[in-house]
Amino acid sequence: MRVACLSGGVGGAKLACGLQDVLAPGELTVIGNVGDDVEVLGLHVAPDLDSVLYALAGLNDEERGWGRAGETWRALEAARHWGGEGWFMLGDLDLGLHLVRTQALRTGDPLSAVTARLAEAAGLATLVLPATDDPLRTSVVTPGGTFPFQEWFVARRHEDEVDAMVFAGADAARPAPGVLEAIRDADALVVAPSNPYTSIHPILAVDGLRETVVARRERTVAVSPLVGGRAVKGPLDRMLMRMSGGTSPAHVARCYEGLIGALVIDRADAPAESDVPLVVTDTLMTDRDAGRRLAEVVLEAVA
Amino acid sequence: MRVACLSGGVGGAKLACGLQDVLAPGELTVIGNVGDDVEVLGLHVAPDLDSVLYALAGLNDEERGWGRAGETWRALEAARHWGGEGWFMLGDLDLGLHLVRTQALRTGDPLSAVTARLAEAAGLATLVLPATDDPLRTSVVTPGGTFPFQEWFVARRHEDEVDAMVFAGADAARPAPGVLEAIRDADALVVAPSNPYTSIHPILAVDGLRETVVARRERTVAVSPLVGGRAVKGPLDRMLMRMSGGTSPAHVARCYEGLIGALVIDRADAPAESDVPLVVTDTLMTDRDAGRRLAEVVLEAVA
Repeated sequence: MRVACLSGGVGGAKLACGLQDVLAPGELTVIGNVGDDVEVLGLHVAPDLDSVLYALAGLNDEERGWGRAGETWRALEAARHWGGEGWFMLGDLDLGLHLVRTQALRTGDPLSAVTARLAEAAGLATLVLPATDDPLRTSVVTPGGTFPFQEWFVARRHEDEVDAMVFAGADAARPAPGVLEAIRDADALVVAPSNPYTSIHPILAVDGLRETVVARRERTVAVSPLVGGRAVKGPLDRMLMRMSGGTSPAHVARCYEGLIGALVIDRADAPAESDVPLVVTDTLMTDRDAGRRLAEVVLEAVA
Repeated sequence: MRVACLSGGVGGAKLACGLQDVLAPGELTVIGNVGDDVEVLGLHVAPDLDSVLYALAGLNDEERGWGRAGETWRALEAARHWGGEGWFMLGDLDLGLHLVRTQALRTGDPLSAVTARLAEAAGLATLVLPATDDPLRTSVVTPGGTFPFQEWFVARRHEDEVDAMVFAGADAARPAPGVLEAIRDADALVVAPSNPYTSIHPILAVDGLRETVVARRERTVAVSPLVGGRAVKGPLDRMLMRMSGGTSPAHVARCYEGLIGALVIDRADAPAESDVPLVVTDTLMTDRDAGRRLAEVVLEAVA
C-alpha cells in the first residue's frame, strides 16, 4: 500500500508518525509545507519539515509540541549576547540540523535532496519531501498590515486577525521531484490535521499540486484539525470564523472544496452535516497510540 | 599611551588581556591574525580573533586554553548525527558568535566592522581589528603535501613537519581600516608571544604592514613564545628547529629580523645572545596576574 500525506507542523507530524507506525517501511511519503520556512541568524529553518523529521525519528519534544526533546538554548543566548536576533527560538540540538541543511543549500543542493539525506541520516524509511524546492513564502494579510508568516506567528504571537494569506513565489514554484508522483501513485492521500490556511493551502499553491490532488479526490481524506470547534493549538478557529464564517466540519470541508472524498472529524464535532462524507472518531493524538489509531481510521476511510 | 599588539590565538590573547588590564580603557588596539580563519558548517570561524575577544571579555576557558568557559557541544553532536562535518570543535556558546558574524558577513559587512560590533557588544573599550578584511588564508607546506592551516593543525593534529608557510591572498590583502594607523600612532607596538610562522607572519604579509612595523622598529618589542626552548603549546619548537635551525632566543629574533627593537625572553632561556637587545622576565602567563606583570615588563622595555 502506498500512502502520501500532506502535512504542516505538529498535528501533521503526529499523524505522519501514526501512519509510519501502521504502514510497512517505505510505504509512506510525507509532503511538507515550506511556506513558513524562514531565515534566522543566517540559517534556513524549515519548521514544518523539521517537525515531521523529528517526530518520525522519535526526537521531538511531545510536551512542548515543537522542536527536539531535551533541548537547550545556549547558542541562541550567546547569539543574543553578541547582538544577534533572538526572536525565533532555535535550540542547540535544533541548530545542528539547520547548520547542516543551510551549508548544503549554499552549495546549491535543492531542499528535497538535503531533506532526503537528513531522513536517511535519521534512519527513516519514510520519504519526506518538501512540496517545492523553489522559494515559496507565506505572508499573512491582517488589518494591521501584511506580515511574513513567522513574524505574524512568532514575533506578533498570531494575535492579529487574518483576512487572507499570500503565497509569494507560488506562481513559479514547481513541485519538488517525486511530489506529483507520490500523490498520483498513492492508494491513499491523507491531508493531515494541520491548519488548512497556513499549512495545506501553501502546498496546494505549488504548480500542478491542486490539479493532481483533484484527480485523486476519491482516494483523498482529510482530518479536521478542530476538536469541538476549537483549534487544538494555534489560531485556526479564529481564522476559520473570520474567513469562512464558522468552525463546523462543513466549514473545514469547504477549505478543501473539490479536493477530498471524506473528512475525518472528532466525536466532539458530531453529529454534523457536510458536502463530503464525514467519518467520526477520536482525533486528538494525545500519545503515539492515539496517532496510530487515528491513522488506521483514516486509511479505512479511504478503503 | 597608545599601544598596539599583533596577536595570534591563546598566547596573544593572554598578553592582550594583561595589556588591557594595565592600560587605561581605549588605549589598546589588538590586531589579530585571520590566516587561520576557516569555514566550518557554513560558518565563518575566526579562531584567533575569537580567542582575543573571549579573553578580553573574560569569557575564555583558561583551563582548556581555547574557546569559552562552561562550553557544551550539543549542536555539533546533532550536526554530526545529521551527517554534518564534525572535525572542528564548535561549542554551543561559541556558535552564537559564529552565527552572528557569519550572518553579518553574508550581508556584506566587512570583518572589521563585524568584529568592532562584537567587541562593543561585549562592552570592550579595547579595539580589536582583523589584520585585513580581505581573504588571506594560511596553508602549510609539509613533506606529505600542502594543507589548509586548520586541516594541518586540527584534522592532522599538526603532526606533519613544516617546510614553509603559504599565505594565499596576501598579495591582494589590504590592511583593515585603522590597522596601519594603530601601528603608526602606537607609543608601543607589541608582538605577542604567538607562533611567528602561523600567527604573526600572516599579519605581516598584509600589504604595507611589514613596512609600517619596520618604520616603528624602535618602539616595537616582541615576546618570545618559547620557554626553555620549548613551545608552551603547539608545534612551534619543532617548526623553529626545522625551518630556522634552533630554538634559542636568537632563532626567535630572526623570525622578526629588522622588525623589533627588543625581544622579551623567559628566564629559562637566559643567558642568551641575539642581534636585538634581550629583556629577561617570567613569560609564562599562568594566570591573569602573570599576564599583567608581563605586560608591564613589555611596556617598560619599549620605554
